[in-house]
Amino acid sequence: MMHADDCVFCQIIRGRLPASYAYADEEVVAFMDLRPLTPGHLLVVPREHASGLMDLDEAGGLHVWLVAHRLARALRHTKLRCEGVNLLVADGAVAGQQVFHAHLHVIPRFEADGVRIGTEAPDGERAALDSAAAAVRAGLRRLAVVESD
Amino acid sequence: MMHADDCVFCQIIRGRLPASYAYADEEVVAFMDLRPLTPGHLLVVPREHASGLMDLDEAGGLHVWLVAHRLARALRHTKLRCEGVNLLVADGAVAGQQVFHAHLHVIPRFEADGVRIGTEAPDGERAALDSAAAAVRAGLRRLAVVESD
Repeated sequence: MMHADDCVFCQIIRGRLPASYAYADEEVVAFMDLRPLTPGHLLVVPREHASGLMDLDEAGGLHVWLVAHRLARALRHTKLRCEGVNLLVADGAVAGQQVFHAHLHVIPRFEADGVRIGTEAPDGERAALDSAAAAVRAGLRRLAVVESD
Repeated sequence: MMHADDCVFCQIIRGRLPASYAYADEEVVAFMDLRPLTPGHLLVVPREHASGLMDLDEAGGLHVWLVAHRLARALRHTKLRCEGVNLLVADGAVAGQQVFHAHLHVIPRFEADGVRIGTEAPDGERAALDSAAAAVRAGLRRLAVVESD
């Protein structure tokens, strides 16, 4: 199992820093975010260190998602206020990532909870959308080449 | 394959409404969000109608994640500006869900892109975090009972 010595989540997983655990199995742990957007805000964290989506292996990522999906459903069966849920990955500093060990946020939501997600961006024009779609398709082809190297 | 007649995404999947496709396979499609937060903003959508995380089956959800993870990596190999990525599920109106057919957003991010995700919430106290963790553990036990019925 790979760990990074300077990683807060690796320290938590090794028991060297405290955390409020909601779930753990052989591959992932889930504990409460230290700076919850709402009460019940959870992080699902793979035990093996990966800095983000680029180096998180696909199988490990699938299990992170599976646990997050279960936690999202479980939140509706708690005493915590939960009228909706956000699942969120922040990959990269510009995306809001603060701890560089891949993790998935599970965030209970309720009316007027103060959480904001969005922008005032205008609707997209079809030509711009088609161009973006073509760029992504080209990116998928490049990814297949790069990752097969 | 279940479809909902009044669902915009089911209409897109059946070819009755236009979309700019980036990817498609037997289980999911990925097309550009009509109201992109940034250029390249994608939606990964299961072909089978589910309104959200509560009725999305686990296997279907896993494939949605797998494709989103690949698209997130592919975005780094496009001409689109992408210094980071957010993966986002909005489950329920209070969480920002606008189309009630489960979907996962893949959002390229870059410096000063205008997207805001967060709140000014204070840090959590350990007692409150422990209490929330206990509530989630109880919710997981209840979920196992409910979903085994």
